[in-house]
Amino acid sequence: MRGKFISFEGGEGSGKTTQIQLLAKALEKQGGKIFLTKEPGGDKSICREIRALLLDTAHKGLLDDRAELFLFLADRAQHISKIIMPALESGHTVLCDRFAASTFAYQFYARQVADFDFIKLNNDFAARSLIPDLTFYIDIDPEIGIKRKEKQTLSRIDAESMEFHKKVRNGFYEFFKESKWPVEMIDGSASIENIHSKIIERTEKLFKVP
Amino acid sequence: MRGKFISFEGGEGSGKTTQIQLLAKALEKQGGKIFLTKEPGGDKSICREIRALLLDTAHKGLLDDRAELFLFLADRAQHISKIIMPALESGHTVLCDRFAASTFAYQFYARQVADFDFIKLNNDFAARSLIPDLTFYIDIDPEIGIKRKEKQTLSRIDAESMEFHKKVRNGFYEFFKESKWPVEMIDGSASIENIHSKIIERTEKLFKVP
Repeated sequence: MRGKFISFEGGEGSGKTTQIQLLAKALEKQGGKIFLTKEPGGDKSICREIRALLLDTAHKGLLDDRAELFLFLADRAQHISKIIMPALESGHTVLCDRFAASTFAYQFYARQVADFDFIKLNNDFAARSLIPDLTFYIDIDPEIGIKRKEKQTLSRIDAESMEFHKKVRNGFYEFFKESKWPVEMIDGSASIENIHSKIIERTEKLFKVP
Repeated sequence: MRGKFISFEGGEGSGKTTQIQLLAKALEKQGGKIFLTKEPGGDKSICREIRALLLDTAHKGLLDDRAELFLFLADRAQHISKIIMPALESGHTVLCDRFAASTFAYQFYARQVADFDFIKLNNDFAARSLIPDLTFYIDIDPEIGIKRKEKQTLSRIDAESMEFHKKVRNGFYEFFKESKWPVEMIDGSASIENIHSKIIERTEKLFKVP
């Protein structure tokens, strides 16, 4: 049986990386075949090098916005065809730290690098029209989220202005409204345990759907 | 005055890299401000790393076709905005070893990775609708072109099948017919000197146009 595809989205410091790992552990304990991955950087060769190009702080001011968009799309095309689809086909539940909603939130709503339809056309092509069975969007005020991160660990994109991160947050809201993708909005200011139980509960519901 | 943008296209072993260097030297002797560049790999940081991802023979069979297309587009977007446009604006004649015609010949006509309009839309976006003032297409039978190259210097794309390289050659013909870009078709089986004088002659004509 084809596995379920679950993505985690949120701004910097939302806690999604912690939560995805907690969910993976919990599902593995229940005997699930779990495949944990992320974007950008979901394979060990090509995607990982694209990730470095995208996030390297040395590229701040150097990387053209359109090139950035195409690098994210290249990463997604590679990740979908070589990693995510085979994992789903072999019955794994795929948990993915960031996916297409981030492209809309960051490159469309925050950067306005191209119009919505252009990004949608290209994303559908890169993702071979695959959309997650469920997305957890962990919402956090960027004023709080960015502070949670150690300054030295901020990537090129983390290090954007507060105004940019506010546009990203608003972009996620708009995207989930617009796209009608199945999403669970979660308040990222709650405790780790609290958020984890909500995620577990919602995930169990997803698996119960025939 | 904005400089002229001249691209060189052709299959593997067509001799275009030799010819572009000869042209650059000749124009410099005449006092021209020449900027010599190439795709992929036209800047020293991001494009060069994208070039390595695209051409590394270790990525044979690993790199997804759609990811390949997006990497070429990322390289072009970066190259156009950060390198080619500023060079043209500062009055340089830009000589570029491969440009968008290669994307159509390789990714559309040979690989059929997406339809023509999709590739055109994306290429126009990446190139900010810039097209060369003149393209030299150096035509060579791939049976001869590939043999001209040392086996150990063949890139991932050079190392494709003969059938593929024949599709690329046909793709260049089709593209120049379809696009109506200003092109000078040159028989790559002629001598280096012979080809060089044809290129010089045509280039001088380009500069005479008011």
